[in-house]
Amino acid sequence: MMRKTQLSETARLLKRSVMRDLMKHAVDPQIISLAGGFPANDCIPVETFRASMDRVLTRDGYRALQYGPPYRPLREWLAAYMQQRGVQCEPEQVFITNGAQQGLAILSRLFCDPGDPAVIEAVTFTGVQQVTVGRRLATRTVATHLESGVEVEALEAAFRSEPRPRLAILIPNFHNPLGVSISLEKRQRIVELAARYEVPIVEDDPYSPLRFLGSAPPSMKALDTAERVFYIGSFSKMLAPAMRLGWIVAPKGVEDRVTVLRESIDLESSQLIQRAVFDFAHSGALESHLVQLNATNLRRRNAMLAALEQYLGPLGATWTKPEGGLFVWVTLPETIDSWDLFHRAIAKKVAFIPGAAFAVEGGFRNTMRLNFSNATEERLRDAVQRLAEAMEN
Amino acid sequence: MMRKTQLSETARLLKRSVMRDLMKHAVDPQIISLAGGFPANDCIPVETFRASMDRVLTRDGYRALQYGPPYRPLREWLAAYMQQRGVQCEPEQVFITNGAQQGLAILSRLFCDPGDPAVIEAVTFTGVQQVTVGRRLATRTVATHLESGVEVEALEAAFRSEPRPRLAILIPNFHNPLGVSISLEKRQRIVELAARYEVPIVEDDPYSPLRFLGSAPPSMKALDTAERVFYIGSFSKMLAPAMRLGWIVAPKGVEDRVTVLRESIDLESSQLIQRAVFDFAHSGALESHLVQLNATNLRRRNAMLAALEQYLGPLGATWTKPEGGLFVWVTLPETIDSWDLFHRAIAKKVAFIPGAAFAVEGGFRNTMRLNFSNATEERLRDAVQRLAEAMEN
Repeated sequence: MMRKTQLSETARLLKRSVMRDLMKHAVDPQIISLAGGFPANDCIPVETFRASMDRVLTRDGYRALQYGPPYRPLREWLAAYMQQRGVQCEPEQVFITNGAQQGLAILSRLFCDPGDPAVIEAVTFTGVQQVTVGRRLATRTVATHLESGVEVEALEAAFRSEPRPRLAILIPNFHNPLGVSISLEKRQRIVELAARYEVPIVEDDPYSPLRFLGSAPPSMKALDTAERVFYIGSFSKMLAPAMRLGWIVAPKGVEDRVTVLRESIDLESSQLIQRAVFDFAHSGALESHLVQLNATNLRRRNAMLAALEQYLGPLGATWTKPEGGLFVWVTLPETIDSWDLFHRAIAKKVAFIPGAAFAVEGGFRNTMRLNFSNATEERLRDAVQRLAEAMEN
Repeated sequence: MMRKTQLSETARLLKRSVMRDLMKHAVDPQIISLAGGFPANDCIPVETFRASMDRVLTRDGYRALQYGPPYRPLREWLAAYMQQRGVQCEPEQVFITNGAQQGLAILSRLFCDPGDPAVIEAVTFTGVQQVTVGRRLATRTVATHLESGVEVEALEAAFRSEPRPRLAILIPNFHNPLGVSISLEKRQRIVELAARYEVPIVEDDPYSPLRFLGSAPPSMKALDTAERVFYIGSFSKMLAPAMRLGWIVAPKGVEDRVTVLRESIDLESSQLIQRAVFDFAHSGALESHLVQLNATNLRRRNAMLAALEQYLGPLGATWTKPEGGLFVWVTLPETIDSWDLFHRAIAKKVAFIPGAAFAVEGGFRNTMRLNFSNATEERLRDAVQRLAEAMEN
């Protein structure tokens, strides 16, 4: 499946505003919300981060509050962190951003003018759509297999057609909203395609540190001998969203362009946040936080999958079985419209996001995204039971 | 003076890279730097801000580290702050940004497509140029009078010519780099012109809280009955740059568009920083900080003006006499090229920024920007004396 998108910008903005309404339900305390994309409130490491912040302000004084170049120790820590994951890179190739979304905004400006073709998945994170719509790119979409990730044949067709796409944005691990990861074999083929057709790949990877099962395949950036992959990481999910801190790993030779682009957007990232995040990571608090976070997420994921098996399986639903991240993607019988179901579910005090909200070109009306990270096992079980009741109404 | 700019993007980027080299001198401890645009290191309120940060993390817990909508108490505080300055606005009209630079980036995207005409001052902050160059706007420049601010006749000519400019960016108070403020009479005429020609004015105002002499004229936004003015403020200079926090005050009716644009760029500003800045402002610490900061800045400004009088006046230089902010603009005899002077000054261990670095269309080679806020009175006096020696070499 691959065709130019027809949705107008207005339609997209409307979709965003629907999303915002949905998110309001996500924070209504009366409702069990499976709608959010938030890390669990009860897993955010407030005390250890407060200690880092206090150390930085005590030790670094005004330097932590002044203008400054990207914080070198953080760039070095990130380069070492990426090297552990098989990516050979120097600190100079690591660019600090205000979260993964800004990484997308910067890379889309680096490669694309308005009207240029770009490849994204037909079902993808709304932030990816905001970038392609906001920059008025001519979107080509490719389907994603629910067990092995993006369809490589479709990707090649999109890369081959003229004019050549200026970039492709893919979510390799624990896809938002699908929960799937791209298989090792597909990663190798994608990197080969990027080299052959000279299409830069944006590897949008905020979730890989949230693996709780299985072993991590190498990132596409690690397989990227032709230097076509631009990696995006984020502290939002692995530490806390209010860091608003992420990073790009880029091939050598683009430093000046990325730096100037970044400066024109918002000058620089906060010295204070960069130093506090470095202190937190360097002190070992990040590692122990991730152990605890992923153990909690695994228990919650298991509780959700068990409840889906018990309550939604008999009603004909199927779902992805993620090895990490925050989301399960549920496919309902084709007769069920998840927008209708959403309203019935709200009446039963449970919220989710209809899958169609993530569908770039429409469709997917019988699907939904469920978040399992931000409720207790008991409430997750209750929520899925209520969903089943809403379906049977 | 008004013509379409001829400088290529490459030339501009080169200029930026020269600026970065200059800034390196600004942090060499051997050199007395008049080059920075930094608030004084010794005036940054580290301890009181640390107390605010600690209170927020103790009191608000995970909420301070989670995703969240723009922090309502901060929007309310900002609306009240703007009302004190004569601007009638609701909290819904206040948009939180990552500093003034992001305000410029958002408003330029709100109004302009690549190629659209935009009006800026012929000598202006490099961040303004980065936005117009980065967005490939067709820049029309207007001259600025060194005692009363932007030339209104030139502005009208720029507004009248077709195609109509899509926006104009003006710095009303303690101009960077010129140090001048726009007179009340000119403010009134500018707002009338904006209404008559339907050109949105971006009032880029990071410096107004840094007034140490005279009384503040109303902001253009306060005079703006036709709702053509978009105000940009920032905490970078009034509190600390690492806040990376600023705001836009916009007319009603653009909330959805501004919000979606902002989300596509980097989602949102840090809940943590928003809450800590609100705590700092609400507690009264901001007010007492500004009293102390401006007293220090005034002493330093006076020391610099006295030294200029003593050492550079006899050499034929003239300079602006700012009532606030961070900068004095010096005009040297026409025979002196301040790029050449810069190298001789560095040899004498003093740095400044040649005025040509701020000149959108070249020229101004006999000018320089001197920062007076980030050195002691004694060192400022030494620095100006060394500048005079460098001129006489």
